[in-house]
Amino acid sequence: MKTNFPTKEHLLDAHKRIVNYIHRTPVLTSTSLNNLTQASLFFKCENFQKAGSFKIRGASNALLKLPESEKEKGVATHYSGNFAQALALAAKLNDTKSYIVMPSDAPKVKKNAVMSYGGLITECEPTLDARESTLAQVVEKTGAIFIHPFNNHDVICGQATACMELLNDSPDLDYIVCPVGGGGLISGTALAAHYFGKDVSVIGAEPENADDAFRSIQAGKILPSIDPKTIADGLKTSLGNLTFPIIQQHVSEIITVSESEIQTAMHLIWERMKIVIEPSSAVTLAAIVKKAAFFKTKKIGLMLSGGNVSF
Amino acid sequence: MKTNFPTKEHLLDAHKRIVNYIHRTPVLTSTSLNNLTQASLFFKCENFQKAGSFKIRGASNALLKLPESEKEKGVATHYSGNFAQALALAAKLNDTKSYIVMPSDAPKVKKNAVMSYGGLITECEPTLDARESTLAQVVEKTGAIFIHPFNNHDVICGQATACMELLNDSPDLDYIVCPVGGGGLISGTALAAHYFGKDVSVIGAEPENADDAFRSIQAGKILPSIDPKTIADGLKTSLGNLTFPIIQQHVSEIITVSESEIQTAMHLIWERMKIVIEPSSAVTLAAIVKKAAFFKTKKIGLMLSGGNVSF
Repeated sequence: MKTNFPTKEHLLDAHKRIVNYIHRTPVLTSTSLNNLTQASLFFKCENFQKAGSFKIRGASNALLKLPESEKEKGVATHYSGNFAQALALAAKLNDTKSYIVMPSDAPKVKKNAVMSYGGLITECEPTLDARESTLAQVVEKTGAIFIHPFNNHDVICGQATACMELLNDSPDLDYIVCPVGGGGLISGTALAAHYFGKDVSVIGAEPENADDAFRSIQAGKILPSIDPKTIADGLKTSLGNLTFPIIQQHVSEIITVSESEIQTAMHLIWERMKIVIEPSSAVTLAAIVKKAAFFKTKKIGLMLSGGNVSF
Repeated sequence: MKTNFPTKEHLLDAHKRIVNYIHRTPVLTSTSLNNLTQASLFFKCENFQKAGSFKIRGASNALLKLPESEKEKGVATHYSGNFAQALALAAKLNDTKSYIVMPSDAPKVKKNAVMSYGGLITECEPTLDARESTLAQVVEKTGAIFIHPFNNHDVICGQATACMELLNDSPDLDYIVCPVGGGGLISGTALAAHYFGKDVSVIGAEPENADDAFRSIQAGKILPSIDPKTIADGLKTSLGNLTFPIIQQHVSEIITVSESEIQTAMHLIWERMKIVIEPSSAVTLAAIVKKAAFFKTKKIGLMLSGGNVSF
């Protein structure tokens, strides 16, 4: 598989392609959290990204790579956390249409976000079967191009750009800790660290309650989590066949954290840094607090993936 | 009274004096909130300030102005929202002691914050009488210098520096909207706008449930709020005899907002900007949303005073 991984040039091209469609998010530090962990933490704040998460990066790259003849028919995807609204916004910024298949029980705030970006919603029953068959119908009817939320090399290359920026701003990190859901962000991060980092290891952080990456790495094959329950709702998704081999090759370890460790870490970031992050982002700090002795005195980048919480 | 107001030079000196002890906080913008209000909003983010609010500015200025002989005996104040922890931190940064009188029912998180900065806490009964007599005893016993949380010209000059920085970053504002509690921040802001602004008006924002500034301006004399109840707990305090005349002279209007307007505005800022602000800061956006027709198309600075919320 390795020979098929996106290359350094693919990542550089992706960043050039999307740079005018995304925010260059800041890398923040916190004296208080450095004292607490006895490490030097560098937070890449994708919670400040357009549409509230890193997903606009991959969505924009995949969309912008389409030939004009395909782009004008629009893009389609199914609801999966923040990707749907990111694709809708990317489509809007590029004057094309987006078709989003959403289960009838998706949160209203997510539907509103998709609609506010001009996304055209088709509702379906809240089952995997209904989702896939409805999406197939939408694609058939409209000619729109399906963009998978993470199991797509163009999406992965887009997500990699967050880590490229982080390494540009903080070149001498020892570790980068990244949440693992479907694996789009961490596989992009791991490739970026491999191509552009100097001796930096990428570590995944994942809820104990949705530990498919941890188990899959151990087993050497994808073992999905079945209907996992976690407050880190962006991390319920299991790995895909494109993200898994990149993680196998380029991620050094997966640390799992409990629900209460996630909640404590989220509140620490809210209270000490005064920024809003979603639970899925908090697994990074939770992993560092949990393995404090291991991370002590190290320079660590944390991928804060998003800030979409409803109050 | 006017001739006794702090001068332009006092403000410039204050900024020079404290600049190495404070953060230069960012001025953030939000496309989403600009669209919502149809105005151009510039948020001065004192929620990112040291100790979580603007109060370190005034505390530092008052402390640094003391002659060495007084400074070495330490400083004292009574608990009033964020000022106690700000004074404790300012004292720590200047290698001196701080004595904080706190009512026995003060939130534990606030006591911990004061202690984490090395503040020496004396507890008292939760009454105004007990607070003042205990403070008098502490001052008598230790020789520490009492620094009032807002009714003190050196404190006011320190608080003014936030607006000086805002006007430096965003020179052509039409309005600056500022929360009103005891009046330390808004009187400093109004002086800074008067000395350094170009045709900018300062407007106060205050909870309907703690509307002493609104009523006092109407009456031409200080009419305190008696035991007000509001989620904007930093704004329960009533004006002092030094802050009131500056507000009379240099603040063009006070807008009052309801509890639900404050809550809505706070959630809007959390959700759209992904930053944590305390309810006292949210009165600014609440006032702009409430008077949308008046503020439409204007360039408006908002003083986000702090971010100390416990979760």
